[in-house]
Amino acid sequence: MSKGTVVLAYSGGLDTSCILVWLKEQGYDVIAFLANIGQEEDFEAAKKKAVDLGAKKVFIEDLRSEFVEDFIWPAVQANAVYEDRYLLGTAVARPCIGRRQVEIARKEGAQFVSHGATGKGNDQIRFELTCYALYPEVKAPWSMDANLMHIRWVRPHILELSHGPADLYLMTKNPEDAPNTPDVLEIEFTNGVPVKVTNIKEGQSKDSPLEIFSYLNEIGGKHGVGRIDIVENRSIGMKSRGIYETPGGTILFKAHLDIETFTMDKEVRRIKQALSIKFSEFIYNGFWYSPECDFVRHCITKSQENVQGRVQLSVFKGQVYILGRESPKSLYNEELVSMDVQGDYDPCDASGFIRINAVRLREHHRLQSLADNKQ
Amino acid sequence: MSKGTVVLAYSGGLDTSCILVWLKEQGYDVIAFLANIGQEEDFEAAKKKAVDLGAKKVFIEDLRSEFVEDFIWPAVQANAVYEDRYLLGTAVARPCIGRRQVEIARKEGAQFVSHGATGKGNDQIRFELTCYALYPEVKAPWSMDANLMHIRWVRPHILELSHGPADLYLMTKNPEDAPNTPDVLEIEFTNGVPVKVTNIKEGQSKDSPLEIFSYLNEIGGKHGVGRIDIVENRSIGMKSRGIYETPGGTILFKAHLDIETFTMDKEVRRIKQALSIKFSEFIYNGFWYSPECDFVRHCITKSQENVQGRVQLSVFKGQVYILGRESPKSLYNEELVSMDVQGDYDPCDASGFIRINAVRLREHHRLQSLADNKQ
Amino acid sequence: MSKGTVVLAYSGGLDTSCILVWLKEQGYDVIAFLANIGQEEDFEAAKKKAVDLGAKKVFIEDLRSEFVEDFIWPAVQANAVYEDRYLLGTAVARPCIGRRQVEIARKEGAQFVSHGATGKGNDQIRFELTCYALYPEVKAPWSMDANLMHIRWVRPHILELSHGPADLYLMTKNPEDAPNTPDVLEIEFTNGVPVKVTNIKEGQSKDSPLEIFSYLNEIGGKHGVGRIDIVENRSIGMKSRGIYETPGGTILFKAHLDIETFTMDKEVRRIKQALSIKFSEFIYNGFWYSPECDFVRHCITKSQENVQGRVQLSVFKGQVYILGRESPKSLYNEELVSMDVQGDYDPCDASGFIRINAVRLREHHRLQSLADNKQ
Amino acid sequence: MSKGTVVLAYSGGLDTSCILVWLKEQGYDVIAFLANIGQEEDFEAAKKKAVDLGAKKVFIEDLRSEFVEDFIWPAVQANAVYEDRYLLGTAVARPCIGRRQVEIARKEGAQFVSHGATGKGNDQIRFELTCYALYPEVKAPWSMDANLMHIRWVRPHILELSHGPADLYLMTKNPEDAPNTPDVLEIEFTNGVPVKVTNIKEGQSKDSPLEIFSYLNEIGGKHGVGRIDIVENRSIGMKSRGIYETPGGTILFKAHLDIETFTMDKEVRRIKQALSIKFSEFIYNGFWYSPECDFVRHCITKSQENVQGRVQLSVFKGQVYILGRESPKSLYNEELVSMDVQGDYDPCDASGFIRINAVRLREHHRLQSLADNKQ
Repeated sequence: MSKGTVVLAYSGGLDTSCILVWLKEQGYDVIAFLANIGQEEDFEAAKKKAVDLGAKKVFIEDLRSEFVEDFIWPAVQANAVYEDRYLLGTAVARPCIGRRQVEIARKEGAQFVSHGATGKGNDQIRFELTCYALYPEVKAPWSMDANLMHIRWVRPHILELSHGPADLYLMTKNPEDAPNTPDVLEIEFTNGVPVKVTNIKEGQSKDSPLEIFSYLNEIGGKHGVGRIDIVENRSIGMKSRGIYETPGGTILFKAHLDIETFTMDKEVRRIKQALSIKFSEFIYNGFWYSPECDFVRHCITKSQENVQGRVQLSVFKGQVYILGRESPKSLYNEELVSMDVQGDYDPCDASGFIRINAVRLREHHRLQSLADNKQ
Repeated sequence: MSKGTVVLAYSGGLDTSCILVWLKEQGYDVIAFLANIGQEEDFEAAKKKAVDLGAKKVFIEDLRSEFVEDFIWPAVQANAVYEDRYLLGTAVARPCIGRRQVEIARKEGAQFVSHGATGKGNDQIRFELTCYALYPEVKAPWSMDANLMHIRWVRPHILELSHGPADLYLMTKNPEDAPNTPDVLEIEFTNGVPVKVTNIKEGQSKDSPLEIFSYLNEIGGKHGVGRIDIVENRSIGMKSRGIYETPGGTILFKAHLDIETFTMDKEVRRIKQALSIKFSEFIYNGFWYSPECDFVRHCITKSQENVQGRVQLSVFKGQVYILGRESPKSLYNEELVSMDVQGDYDPCDASGFIRINAVRLREHHRLQSLADNKQ
Repeated sequence: MSKGTVVLAYSGGLDTSCILVWLKEQGYDVIAFLANIGQEEDFEAAKKKAVDLGAKKVFIEDLRSEFVEDFIWPAVQANAVYEDRYLLGTAVARPCIGRRQVEIARKEGAQFVSHGATGKGNDQIRFELTCYALYPEVKAPWSMDANLMHIRWVRPHILELSHGPADLYLMTKNPEDAPNTPDVLEIEFTNGVPVKVTNIKEGQSKDSPLEIFSYLNEIGGKHGVGRIDIVENRSIGMKSRGIYETPGGTILFKAHLDIETFTMDKEVRRIKQALSIKFSEFIYNGFWYSPECDFVRHCITKSQENVQGRVQLSVFKGQVYILGRESPKSLYNEELVSMDVQGDYDPCDASGFIRINAVRLREHHRLQSLADNKQ
Repeated sequence: MSKGTVVLAYSGGLDTSCILVWLKEQGYDVIAFLANIGQEEDFEAAKKKAVDLGAKKVFIEDLRSEFVEDFIWPAVQANAVYEDRYLLGTAVARPCIGRRQVEIARKEGAQFVSHGATGKGNDQIRFELTCYALYPEVKAPWSMDANLMHIRWVRPHILELSHGPADLYLMTKNPEDAPNTPDVLEIEFTNGVPVKVTNIKEGQSKDSPLEIFSYLNEIGGKHGVGRIDIVENRSIGMKSRGIYETPGGTILFKAHLDIETFTMDKEVRRIKQALSIKFSEFIYNGFWYSPECDFVRHCITKSQENVQGRVQLSVFKGQVYILGRESPKSLYNEELVSMDVQGDYDPCDASGFIRINAVRLREHHRLQSLADNKQ
């Protein structure tokens, strides 16, 4: 007699294979769900393995396009970055995977979802909040025992600060071993998202979201772009080391930052910057499907209406250098900004502007002097 | 009969030489003041030139140590960065120079100060706000005519987007021409400021503020670190292109960011991050000597009390890679964070934490479903 | 030979009458524009006076409805309040009046606009920024002489702190003299704006924007609601005393705050609160027609989608007391919140939630104890 | 054989009496701790009851002075208010009570603490976070059963929106029944905290913190000041109704707001305002003893250095009216602000200031027009 059906986010690895077996032993029917979000994986072998371990059904789902369009693009628009460094690659994958997992669970009438994330990590939170938000009646059975058993040897080095992480990187070359000549790219943006990337020297170009992002990953990876080795603050407050590589994301981050500053009003940008910090925290902490994240995403999307144009950049030895930009929506007025063309601009106004701003500072000084003299 | 005495911030260049002459012609006595903040300059030749042009007195002042300690160090503590990219090197120099200029003006009984900054730029604002704040009775005579005349050819290329800026950089090598082997540095911080830098391979170390900063400029420059070519939003709202090189500042920015995240509480850091954004805007806009900047600087200094420890990093081809960090004040608890040691940590708590956070999300979903069903 | 045509924002009072005459004397053709935004005024007499003083044309425009709908309603949605106290009544009138003035100037081919606001006040800034933003080619001739001459006796008492302002209030009764029985109102909101007000006892109700706002002014005024006597910080930094009465606005502020908290998600509200503070500063400082104000207004409007329902309140002796509220969109779930119904809510989860939140606090304490022991 | 010793925050009421008995039944030794923070209570009767129910020891502690000085005063300095309305009276009491409870637990060698707060409420969180932060090794046994049993009838009406709360108020008179003549008070502040209150008509004055606060409670209560009936967002996300009365706190809030705006720089105030919103959330959510709350409290205290002076106000029928203020530290410069004295202030500067601010707005309009023409 079954306890019910569980949709398990299955990776094909040891962790989730153990959980699959454990769930079976506990009396659940298990549906294995394997999301393709671009990782290197032998999906057929994983499917076979899941069936062999007793999965009632196996879903292998290609989520790559929706991952790029629905999750990575909004992060690009936001310049989303957690604690000034982490570009949130893993964090935006969870709501993407969880959304499909919940769809499968509803369709298959499953009462439960499960996953391989551990009790101290962010991914458990991101996964479960997604499921509860989108499928409030669902439950998530979860086994510490099954989980802890093997975590022990899965990634021991990551937690030791004294070891170099060089051998952990999968997508990016060591910058020291990267080519000695840069690639020069032009990225075109509309509404703050990339619509085309062109390799200037090679003449090659891509214009679908998935192709653009894959190509930027390839070029970034080839030049060793986007490696970081940081200590970050987890959702639940503890500090933890994170080793990340985000080659395409890093190129897009820099290019978008450039075209955005070029086309967006200064004061709008300040407000948007504060919203982006919040957006990044929501994503990191697992609140993609929350009213506040919906609201902030809406506001950020609004701010991107004029973020349009082309950015040229070179990619070289782990770095991205912005070479230039142009835009039909630019607020950059060469004549106005030029020192030697006055046009409408009366330099005397600047003196008035400064003196008015100084009224408060002078008054402050006057009071301080009074106070100092009394003492 | 003199109109009074002017202290002129004199650079030795054509701009301020013209202003010196113009001020003399207008009937002022001129005291030339030349600040050494580390720029390449033949100070003796400049002094001679000023005297030849009619300066009554010439002050050449070595402000390098106070520039590093009083202005750059607070910016390092803050991770000060304007519009996510500009490290504010020029912007923090103005209040340093202006402070000494005002001291000289007071000491010499001068009623006026002058400078070579132009009417559309940030530097006029930074300079004049500093003078008004510290010496409220002072006036700043300023000639558009004298100024505009020569600006025309002083830096025309900077304003043309189509020209590459490669030949404008003075402190940094082109990353493509930089050495093929990295330098590895260890920087030690106390209270969020560097107190020692050691070149690991060469065994060399520096421990005075000026020496530390100069050495980081040297190493960063050698490896092409810290070049940016951006469009930024000026104080008065116009966009303008900025070409900057900040080799030592960039290394310090990355090292400080790392040791700060390692040692500072997560939630304190969030608040400090928002204060730093404001601090950066105040600096950029010329409000170093303002009540709000004093207040924010005080708060940021307070936040740095535990920012102590050592960061190892490598500098290579324009990039800075953090290799590791350690601190006696770290909040990083290897045992607590390790996946396989439970200690005090009950994994069941995480589930409770998540379910409580999900109460609001589930309720939101319930209401949305009700609304959707009605439509 | 005319210097050109000026559209003058004419009040009928001494200030703007002087300016009218002065502009004529300077050689301008003057079009007088008198906006009706609900003030007590004999518009026909003012028209006659303007003609007698030499105005070429006189426009008297009833802007009351657009003032309420386009300017006051957004301020209500935002809970706009400057420095925690001032409800921005005057500040939102300026962009309303300026907008029409610019329309007239364009239509009549006038090259100039003018007004009666003085050089140290906020209103000059609000007025002129509006005109420049909406009609960039316009100029604003402005006479200090004409202005200062009479200001001297127009409102001397306002600037003396020692005088009570009791005799300055026009719209509100002294609370001590207000009725001894409250009025009880029910205000219905849709999208965060009032759509109906009903006087419960009297059964009377209003449902057009202008009628609603006028009625609330009447009831608020009768009970002495919304008087404040504050010192505020002007745009240009100086502190100045402000005596305001905002009877209807105060009732709406309190009612909207209540229905908003009742219907809006907690975290959305926090973000919206920060945006509202900015919105209020933009309005106060004259930036209604700015990209940042447009952006923030858009975001705030978005946040109001579910702000719907009815609020009951009593108005009595200068106070507004919220009596209750109800909404079809409420996130208030009586069952969930009730202490004695558990439903889906597992109290053990709260303990987990708390313990997870305490991980960071305990670790902080551990480090502090270590530090204390070392000293 | 005892399971260990529990220090129970005992109220003398049914809830905590039940818990006391339940803890005894479970095998714990119970120390009852009864905090006097100014509530109406027969402490001797409560002590006798605790002993009768089996408490091993009973501590009755007068915390009134430290409650006012260490908890209420910082909230006054901050203008702390949660969701724009709730003055956090209950929320600041928890860390005060919890601190002493932990001191007793340490002194008595107790391993456990307990309390009467329920699983869905904020008070459980506030209480337990305080205990964990200050005494990380402590545990908190807690009984849902014991707790839920009686909560059922303790405060049923509060949760029903349809009932008026009039009979629930203990400290404040109904404003309708309040005296028909106001009391006029003068409150003197130093460093943002009240140091003296004087009843102008009666000549009476108080100058110790506890006396000042008690007297303001008395006067505020007499005039029906500080009643609110709101729906608020609890820590754990649910909305809940809150009926509060804060007579003295409301008077102090308004007086402090006034003297602060009078004496604090405009831009400092804006930053402090944002910090205060955070501070209020930390208090509400139980994080008084957290690194972030320590940090923010430090910053707010710093901001209060010049908040000094006297405020006159009248208290009448539920309202507090500010009558005037004066301060030796005021930034209010009557001469400077006066419309008819120019002094150092050149009105032409205001025009320059405005035109510079308009550069961005005009440019924005230019681009919009271009965009509109293309469509």
